Amino acid sequence: MPPSFPENLSRRDLIAAALLSGTLSNTSAAAAGDMAAVQAEIGKNHDKNVERLQTWIRQPSIAAENRGMTEGCDLMMRMLSEAGFGTVKKVPSDGQPGVFATLDAGAARTIGIYFMYDVKQVDPSEWMSPPFDAALVDRPGLGKVLIGRGAVNQKGPEATFLAALNAFRTSGKRLPVNLVFIAEGEEEIGSPHFPQIMKRPEVLEAFRKCAGVFMPMPMQSLDGTVTINLGAKGVIELELVSSGEKWGRGPKLDVHSSTEAAIDSPAWHLIQALNTLVAADGHTPAIEGFLDDVRPLTPDEKAMIRNAAQKESEALAKKALGVEHWVHNVDWLESRELMAGRPTVNIEGLVGGYTGPGGKTVLPHRAVAKLDLRLVPNMTAERSLALLKAHLAKKGFGDIEVNMSGGYDPTSTPKDALVVKAAQAVYRRAGLEPILWPRLAGSWPGYIFTGDLLKLPATHFGMGHGSGAHAPNEYYVIESKNKNVEGFDEAARKYVEFLFELGSIA
Amino acid sequence: MPPSFPENLSRRDLIAAALLSGTLSNTSAAAAGDMAAVQAEIGKNHDKNVERLQTWIRQPSIAAENRGMTEGCDLMMRMLSEAGFGTVKKVPSDGQPGVFATLDAGAARTIGIYFMYDVKQVDPSEWMSPPFDAALVDRPGLGKVLIGRGAVNQKGPEATFLAALNAFRTSGKRLPVNLVFIAEGEEEIGSPHFPQIMKRPEVLEAFRKCAGVFMPMPMQSLDGTVTINLGAKGVIELELVSSGEKWGRGPKLDVHSSTEAAIDSPAWHLIQALNTLVAADGHTPAIEGFLDDVRPLTPDEKAMIRNAAQKESEALAKKALGVEHWVHNVDWLESRELMAGRPTVNIEGLVGGYTGPGGKTVLPHRAVAKLDLRLVPNMTAERSLALLKAHLAKKGFGDIEVNMSGGYDPTSTPKDALVVKAAQAVYRRAGLEPILWPRLAGSWPGYIFTGDLLKLPATHFGMGHGSGAHAPNEYYVIESKNKNVEGFDEAARKYVEFLFELGSIA
Repeated sequence: MPPSFPENLSRRDLIAAALLSGTLSNTSAAAAGDMAAVQAEIGKNHDKNVERLQTWIRQPSIAAENRGMTEGCDLMMRMLSEAGFGTVKKVPSDGQPGVFATLDAGAARTIGIYFMYDVKQVDPSEWMSPPFDAALVDRPGLGKVLIGRGAVNQKGPEATFLAALNAFRTSGKRLPVNLVFIAEGEEEIGSPHFPQIMKRPEVLEAFRKCAGVFMPMPMQSLDGTVTINLGAKGVIELELVSSGEKWGRGPKLDVHSSTEAAIDSPAWHLIQALNTLVAADGHTPAIEGFLDDVRPLTPDEKAMIRNAAQKESEALAKKALGVEHWVHNVDWLESRELMAGRPTVNIEGLVGGYTGPGGKTVLPHRAVAKLDLRLVPNMTAERSLALLKAHLAKKGFGDIEVNMSGGYDPTSTPKDALVVKAAQAVYRRAGLEPILWPRLAGSWPGYIFTGDLLKLPATHFGMGHGSGAHAPNEYYVIESKNKNVEGFDEAARKYVEFLFELGSIA
Repeated sequence: MPPSFPENLSRRDLIAAALLSGTLSNTSAAAAGDMAAVQAEIGKNHDKNVERLQTWIRQPSIAAENRGMTEGCDLMMRMLSEAGFGTVKKVPSDGQPGVFATLDAGAARTIGIYFMYDVKQVDPSEWMSPPFDAALVDRPGLGKVLIGRGAVNQKGPEATFLAALNAFRTSGKRLPVNLVFIAEGEEEIGSPHFPQIMKRPEVLEAFRKCAGVFMPMPMQSLDGTVTINLGAKGVIELELVSSGEKWGRGPKLDVHSSTEAAIDSPAWHLIQALNTLVAADGHTPAIEGFLDDVRPLTPDEKAMIRNAAQKESEALAKKALGVEHWVHNVDWLESRELMAGRPTVNIEGLVGGYTGPGGKTVLPHRAVAKLDLRLVPNMTAERSLALLKAHLAKKGFGDIEVNMSGGYDPTSTPKDALVVKAAQAVYRRAGLEPILWPRLAGSWPGYIFTGDLLKLPATHFGMGHGSGAHAPNEYYVIESKNKNVEGFDEAARKYVEFLFELGSIA
């Protein structure tokens, strides 16, 4: 627990603390009292809140494997009803369904919330604790953490936000804002049906009433910094498939490798195609026209990055990533500019022919490269995909299938947006000056909110800490022993404060 | 059963048939009578002989997975003792053990035999009948076949040869030649310890007494041709491993793909390295110096290939391989010249990052290409490996690990060698004019016999038919309904005849 907000304070102390820690923007002592009353519920219900998260993690919901999705969707809906949403509806799509919910608090302002209820795949053999056990483990230097798939991405922070809503319910206090909620179940496969879900008239109409959108996310780093993301890169995930069938050359089934003397190889064909996608430096995207739409970083964005780079630790970043050098041996500042400003063409996976232990003398009829492309303004997913296809055709690889599985445009939100200012205010009252970061190098489908459909600001908010998204041993801090990060309860209290801030800020 | 040798002939008929079908080279009527007596045992013991093969196939022995190797070696030894070998010894090596055996028939001539007791890996999901069930199945147009891993490569033909030896034993007749036998258990992983096994003084001394070496192999094609291979390409199997650890660039563990904006990618590094290994045509080996030692096909070899190409069916070959065009759109004759005369650099497999269904946004710290290189005279495995390493270093990929798992030099045997002439004689008496083929495009470690160590001729011999080596649904014909190929019993009888021929030919 953080020293400024010890667990053993009485309710009266909490009200006083809320008032002392800086008043909410433009609000009354009555509101501050309400907030403290709500926050006081959280410590009382700690066990129940953590058990809710454990139950959630123990229900795998992996869209990529269509595993536990029906159960995962139903659980999401039950948790929303429990948390006080008046309307909770399953939204069918051509893929996994979405969940739409509304909570009318009779407030003047309405805020949109984005959740995902799916998680990434796992290889259980790589985990120290089974990925769906949701075990609570003491981690030296951190405290008590929950280990499991979805711990930080995204069930942990989402459950923390639900704990905040449950605190309103059990305290009998009204929310300071109305909520419009959407969850999708395909975030980890590139949100292919999220537009379809959002374009349902009922959903779209509800979101049009919102003043902004946020997604719960634990933004505290171990180095003591917190970050507000003003955007995120877009992404395309796809497979390039080279096959004898489509090529009309090479074999149509795996044959003995000796025949390669007289037969073309779809695997070599794929290697040659891939080789055209990056420049001689092995890194710079070389898809024709791909970089044409890149809007260079603005002076304001560069200033933000410069400020951030000063506060962040290069050594810590290198250690976390296991790297000795940044690409092209650029310095820390430039590496951060690349993270925010550079589109990428990345190989996620290579699969061809014999992939088991040792060798097997086959000439494979098929080879696959799994790619993800990250996009910055003003690139779009649609145009980037078209450019890739045109590039391959022009270079003599038009037979190679380009199978996009998901993706979307970049997203951007101005730094003076309501949701950003509210987040800033809450962090500052906690004594933290948030780093404004122009664009997350990863992706989330915020474009659906910030783009032409809704033109709403959208960002992430949250205290707390976790790590290992998409990796083994993903964790989320439940009880912190690290002075730089908060545990579950304090993060939930900050969601309460954030909702009050959203209700009161001008 | 072939019309010329029906199953229901009496023993006397068999003797007559043997005499009628053309006399053995330089041999007596007494020898012909012995041969017929031995051959007559084979039909009588058909069920037992096929059961022996089924038992063998039901014992997986996969060196690449170290699966069932001890049991496979022990079974090999038991079968040799049963077949009449007086000495049967396990030969330890740094890998899987070999099996050395001798059968002293008091004959003037000694012949070497090469067996392998390991088989290739399987993916059972690809098989119509489980690969270790050894099921007998009716196959339209072929007859009764045995389906299983090792059916044709090599347990089926080896069991057929053992049936021939068992027929000598049960008939009480002496073999016309002494036998020196060696089996290895690592043929399918490139025979890495075969030289070590052969260089054991006891083994080497025994083989020095041999007039030649052969390996049982069913050489009948469905188009009615039989082939004698006068050699085989050499091979190197290896993995190229690109990793952040060895490169000193890129991550040392799989990290989120968004970080590719600022981090080098070992997967791209591998793609660029691979791309240098073949020419712009996507096929011609481009490893520096790799082609320098290639001895062009001689006029005699070209004449053999021309003759073979006239007898073989291009349409059948294309259908079997599932190809529409030969490489560079060469014609049938040239495709056959490539098969015999061209070294190759083949990608067997690609494995990197996420290889499961769908995508996973990782930047892999490691990517692997599995290659096999086929070598022709006067290339050597040692020099070719050195050239590959030097090439990679020169092109800037010296950090990429080159892990050779096995391989050896090409092998060649003159067409007037004893084992070749004996094989020709047996095929011709069966009414088949064998195609002399200068060099098998695949590989077997015949170099150990034909090279400087022993300088012995070595080839394959056998009637019968099977297919699907290294592939799913590998089969071997047990009872033929196809006029172009023999079944198990007749193939065994031809091994008996071959042994008599080896004993009598000048």
